[in-house]
Amino acid sequence: MLDRSSTPLNALLRRRRPGHSLEAPFYTSPEIFAADIEAIFERTWVFVGVEPDVPEPGDALTVDIGANAILIVRDDDMAVRAFHNVCRHRGARLVHDEKTTVGNLVCRYHSWTYNLDGDLIHAEHMGGDFDPKCHGLKPVHVRSLEGLIFICLADEPPEDFAEMERAMAPYIAPHHLRDTKIAFQSDLIEEGNWKLVMENNRECYHCGANHPELTVPLFAHGFGFAPEELDEAERAEADRYAALVRSSHAEWEAAGIPSRMQEHLDDRISGFRTERLPLDGDGESHTMDTKAACRLPLGPFSSAKMGGLHFWTQPNSWHHFMGDHVVTFSAIPLSAGQTRVRTTWLVHKDAVEGVDYDLANLIEVWTATNAQDAELVGFCQKGAQSRAYEPGPYSPHTEMLVEKFCRWYIQRMSEHFDVARAAA
Amino acid sequence: MLDRSSTPLNALLRRRRPGHSLEAPFYTSPEIFAADIEAIFERTWVFVGVEPDVPEPGDALTVDIGANAILIVRDDDMAVRAFHNVCRHRGARLVHDEKTTVGNLVCRYHSWTYNLDGDLIHAEHMGGDFDPKCHGLKPVHVRSLEGLIFICLADEPPEDFAEMERAMAPYIAPHHLRDTKIAFQSDLIEEGNWKLVMENNRECYHCGANHPELTVPLFAHGFGFAPEELDEAERAEADRYAALVRSSHAEWEAAGIPSRMQEHLDDRISGFRTERLPLDGDGESHTMDTKAACRLPLGPFSSAKMGGLHFWTQPNSWHHFMGDHVVTFSAIPLSAGQTRVRTTWLVHKDAVEGVDYDLANLIEVWTATNAQDAELVGFCQKGAQSRAYEPGPYSPHTEMLVEKFCRWYIQRMSEHFDVARAAA
Amino acid sequence: MLDRSSTPLNALLRRRRPGHSLEAPFYTSPEIFAADIEAIFERTWVFVGVEPDVPEPGDALTVDIGANAILIVRDDDMAVRAFHNVCRHRGARLVHDEKTTVGNLVCRYHSWTYNLDGDLIHAEHMGGDFDPKCHGLKPVHVRSLEGLIFICLADEPPEDFAEMERAMAPYIAPHHLRDTKIAFQSDLIEEGNWKLVMENNRECYHCGANHPELTVPLFAHGFGFAPEELDEAERAEADRYAALVRSSHAEWEAAGIPSRMQEHLDDRISGFRTERLPLDGDGESHTMDTKAACRLPLGPFSSAKMGGLHFWTQPNSWHHFMGDHVVTFSAIPLSAGQTRVRTTWLVHKDAVEGVDYDLANLIEVWTATNAQDAELVGFCQKGAQSRAYEPGPYSPHTEMLVEKFCRWYIQRMSEHFDVARAAA
Repeated sequence: MLDRSSTPLNALLRRRRPGHSLEAPFYTSPEIFAADIEAIFERTWVFVGVEPDVPEPGDALTVDIGANAILIVRDDDMAVRAFHNVCRHRGARLVHDEKTTVGNLVCRYHSWTYNLDGDLIHAEHMGGDFDPKCHGLKPVHVRSLEGLIFICLADEPPEDFAEMERAMAPYIAPHHLRDTKIAFQSDLIEEGNWKLVMENNRECYHCGANHPELTVPLFAHGFGFAPEELDEAERAEADRYAALVRSSHAEWEAAGIPSRMQEHLDDRISGFRTERLPLDGDGESHTMDTKAACRLPLGPFSSAKMGGLHFWTQPNSWHHFMGDHVVTFSAIPLSAGQTRVRTTWLVHKDAVEGVDYDLANLIEVWTATNAQDAELVGFCQKGAQSRAYEPGPYSPHTEMLVEKFCRWYIQRMSEHFDVARAAA
Repeated sequence: MLDRSSTPLNALLRRRRPGHSLEAPFYTSPEIFAADIEAIFERTWVFVGVEPDVPEPGDALTVDIGANAILIVRDDDMAVRAFHNVCRHRGARLVHDEKTTVGNLVCRYHSWTYNLDGDLIHAEHMGGDFDPKCHGLKPVHVRSLEGLIFICLADEPPEDFAEMERAMAPYIAPHHLRDTKIAFQSDLIEEGNWKLVMENNRECYHCGANHPELTVPLFAHGFGFAPEELDEAERAEADRYAALVRSSHAEWEAAGIPSRMQEHLDDRISGFRTERLPLDGDGESHTMDTKAACRLPLGPFSSAKMGGLHFWTQPNSWHHFMGDHVVTFSAIPLSAGQTRVRTTWLVHKDAVEGVDYDLANLIEVWTATNAQDAELVGFCQKGAQSRAYEPGPYSPHTEMLVEKFCRWYIQRMSEHFDVARAAA
Repeated sequence: MLDRSSTPLNALLRRRRPGHSLEAPFYTSPEIFAADIEAIFERTWVFVGVEPDVPEPGDALTVDIGANAILIVRDDDMAVRAFHNVCRHRGARLVHDEKTTVGNLVCRYHSWTYNLDGDLIHAEHMGGDFDPKCHGLKPVHVRSLEGLIFICLADEPPEDFAEMERAMAPYIAPHHLRDTKIAFQSDLIEEGNWKLVMENNRECYHCGANHPELTVPLFAHGFGFAPEELDEAERAEADRYAALVRSSHAEWEAAGIPSRMQEHLDDRISGFRTERLPLDGDGESHTMDTKAACRLPLGPFSSAKMGGLHFWTQPNSWHHFMGDHVVTFSAIPLSAGQTRVRTTWLVHKDAVEGVDYDLANLIEVWTATNAQDAELVGFCQKGAQSRAYEPGPYSPHTEMLVEKFCRWYIQRMSEHFDVARAAA
């Protein structure tokens, strides 16, 4: 009858205006949310956890992506495996806790039992014609990039994950993620579309006004700026920061620690960005005193001033590797208007809370920053629901990586739904 | 597959049976709710508040109508202005509190700043090609009828607002609304469609059985009645009431206080009805003792017995002006099954709570009445959801103004969706 | 745009694979839920309560089935009647409490009043043209099978209810249901589709692993088994159980108590199954000590060892009749993913709590069993929501009655929507 709620996805994809935020239905429409799940989260490599989430054989982690219930287990040979979390008999959900430890995987309903390879090894009363081999758990593709666990729900996952792995492994390896333990993990349900969560992550234009804690360790001139708006003193400060980045890169790389920027955010499916950047103050960590939060360094670093290595992946993660700890973030879409952000703080596996690190100090900066970001994302979701909303311009100096995220997204969607894009 | 939930609006509009309540989808269908927002609430003048909601420069009031987030501010020249409450940069909602006071309007996200005229006066890092003049807040039409604030979301608002203003200003002016202050404001979420809220307001057939407080100041014979059902004593009482109305009108109008009925509920877009009616008992106010609730009269009235002036507007408001206080009501649709009713009690701006008026006494009648009405509206919403519901007959003696509300509604919808109506 | 959520009911009905659970949309789709209401719950006889729910004249019980609000009352002649629970004036819901006692049925809104026959006997101000005879409550078909109340919303109810009544009355009559009283009633909202609730009820394959209380009075070999999986000792036990069933049937039937199995689950619209089975231990009742929970027997039984008579009806009920008490269950669908299960424990009307029966003891087995079943049903609903779910095979030895429920359901739906079924 009325055509208000219709979301002609193809038209929206075709007419997307470069350099501007997306049209409202991309943030609010349940249909486009379903399309996002299909074209993005069921096709690309999605970050879902870290190996320390499942440190021992039998440890299991569950994660739901759209309508996909996924089970990640460490098997008896210490390999990380992933399955669909559904019994092959009556379809009951198999594992219910988010984290648990199992011997075999036993369905609560009728005791059908699978081993950690997913084979059905026990099912009573099924009669002579029944073939257990046809009723094993359905597998899911899984990869660990130096301890970061990615899964892919596609039958044929994007092959360029290997390129990302080749490029990134040398950056991450020095932080020995597999030798860490989880010091703290928080789940935050943000009241906004997953793309608003990601867009918010891809710029620090908003940091000065909103993140008093995060701007302690970070240099403001790293957020980007319009050169013509700087006064002389600010220009000198910006120059000093640029010189510091150059000298830090030279120093770290000389010590065998890869640090220079690599950016492939919109030129491949498994898009990513990385760079190691100096920190302000004592320069050691994302803490309120800019010193290491944990006494045990993650690797045999020659200095405590390892700066912060960021690693961003499309579509859904960002990570900060410091000399003393790691913080990883995954954004899992729940609905058009809700996203779960899981934050995991990792320290050396031998570190003792209260002795080697103070938990409150370790998590202070990002706990505060996450809460502030969640509020801002909520403001944008509310705004996008308003009839008066129209795409606004991105700053060419501070929001160019938001634009790259949007471009990557539009490309993936257009390819999946076979939409010819107008020349931009 | 199934056609159960379909709501062929055009057919429903065409076959509406005069003198009967509407068919169920008008109360329950989300599609028709969206149509109501489009054809009624985005086209006509909607009552949203009173000038005492924003008494001082910088005072702001937010109201959401359907998907329209609206911001009402009093500017530095004391004019009331209205804007869409969305930042033109990344689309964040601009003002979050329902009421607040601001200097300029600053977006929390990236500090884009607008003055109270809606002009963008500050935006960092946007580069040389950026034109702030193209990024001011989007305005919304707004009018104040002697202090009652109406907004209109249409590009071209109905022009007959001016006729209502011309007719009504003399009735309202004596109550000096702009010289009042808000003594109390309550928001009630009623579990019913906005039209059930309005229909309930447009008849007092239900008052005798449901409103023990409201029927203290009101005369039962003002609710309408079937003459053939009256016994001799009742007939005499009805005649006495009619004579009292006539003599009161004559007396008030002689004193320069317009009082006689004007009714344009279904013959124009900006439909309204007004009449000043005598009150029972001491005849002064809507209170449990029928005396004035506030010692300070609103205007230079020659008597405390000013009765009650009601002013109803289509689609969404009703108001009672007494000698000592004013009560205004706005119904804001939230969904097919939920409506927010905001009630505002206003007294002379110099009145002091506890000295000049007792708050509990002031609000007792309408607080109780609102709660009773909310329950009745909820009963009707539940009934309309039942498959056995069918439109029932309105009483020709006590529900003729409900019929006029429905007729006005059907006319607006039919015109907007260009539906030719069958001859009634 | 996307076709993900579409549910081509006809195709799903046509391709249903016998011997396997249903495809996911049958459990998760709101459209198929609406189709279930239309084709099943608005067409067949639905169990809604027992006569002891409305023991006295004026006692009323309300139940909502889909969008049908139904009112069951006992009239002044002790007959049970059913009406649509909607006033014929403005459509307000008439009776609000789930259970109440009334003289007449008075609408709260404008005091329209109906007698217990549904006739409109009072309506003020309606004018001379108004005919009260055209505005009585709309009736609903209702039958009491020895005290079990069934309603049917179809204009022409299935006639084979009479066959079920003829067959079942002799089984139920000895338990004198009309001479019982409700000792306890519980409502459980299960987080699963109504068909998952019924499928769970139609097998005990899951009982051993999940119902420690229920398996006290029940013999495990009554749940079915694959003969080839039994060892010698188990086979001997199974043979002993079969002999016990045979001898019990002979003994009860000789005493005039019908007990042998009758099964018409999928060969008629008013499908049912019954059988009286011996109980374990002392063999008297569904209790933790297998003894009668109530000292007063329901009828003049020659022995306390009356076993348990089960009576199942399609689409929505099951019942257990013991010598000392009765437990009845009705499953009422609330949405695709929610079902209300009402359980009613009945004892002799003269029994005194604390004297003749201990309430905690009476309800222990089924309170625990219901909670366990609710959890299992929830697991299946979650599994069905997963993209990886696919119909799994039913055990030919323990889940054949689940298959019969599904076959009955598919037949009803196919007939109603006129879908030609492929030859199975």
